[in-house]
Amino acid sequence: MPARIFPTPQDAEAAFYEALERVDLELMMAVWSEDEEIVCVHPGGKRLCGQDQVRDSWRQIFAGGARARIHVTQQVAISGSIVAVHSVHENFYVPGERKPLQVVVATNVYLRTAAGWRMIAHHGSPAPGSAEPPPETPKILH
Amino acid sequence: MPARIFPTPQDAEAAFYEALERVDLELMMAVWSEDEEIVCVHPGGKRLCGQDQVRDSWRQIFAGGARARIHVTQQVAISGSIVAVHSVHENFYVPGERKPLQVVVATNVYLRTAAGWRMIAHHGSPAPGSAEPPPETPKILH
Repeated sequence: MPARIFPTPQDAEAAFYEALERVDLELMMAVWSEDEEIVCVHPGGKRLCGQDQVRDSWRQIFAGGARARIHVTQQVAISGSIVAVHSVHENFYVPGERKPLQVVVATNVYLRTAAGWRMIAHHGSPAPGSAEPPPETPKILH
Repeated sequence: MPARIFPTPQDAEAAFYEALERVDLELMMAVWSEDEEIVCVHPGGKRLCGQDQVRDSWRQIFAGGARARIHVTQQVAISGSIVAVHSVHENFYVPGERKPLQVVVATNVYLRTAAGWRMIAHHGSPAPGSAEPPPETPKILH
């Protein structure tokens, strides 16, 4: 199966959260740049660098098997022709619940590569308090 | 006094941590891009956007008056001609103590502007555990 190409940073971001919802390791790693210069910080976690550490971390997370719906809100996008920085709130919902189980603040950085846009950095941390304001329309500043 | 110009992302980063050590709000804000498209997440904090929120947060932090020495280690730098992403460990030392009081994992994003390199995003989160390995030589991948 040919690798997926993401024509925009937004496409890469959509695939990132699709992979997270589906606990799909291959799709997740297709989102990341194939270079070794990738950095990932999971909420409360240590800094991970390079393909091996990043893949292993997602493998462990996905092996846990927990599935959630993720609603991405409050996006601030700083978009250039080569690099895009997206700041988002990730709202994790357990099926049947109306309030998010967890809200994570994430900084996602994408790079335009020869194979389309790929993630080069993801930094997530728990948002303080769980009582989040209602989801907003995505906010695009650039 | 003319605004400081940072010829490289590394210069901007050095000034960022200098401002933090000196609790110097003007220097801190001289490091940040003057655009509204700036994003800052302090460790354990919510996502802040724009000049006003970012400046206010640093003003509050600096008003606390706590001073620490900061030793930046384990840098991974992904550097392009327009944007640079630095992942670092910030080791906060209280004078006289040999072990860091706090270790923060930070993702710093810099943009080359007409006025030199400026910070556009800072995301910090507490590193898990305080028993950190000894500082390494900075690791530059690009």
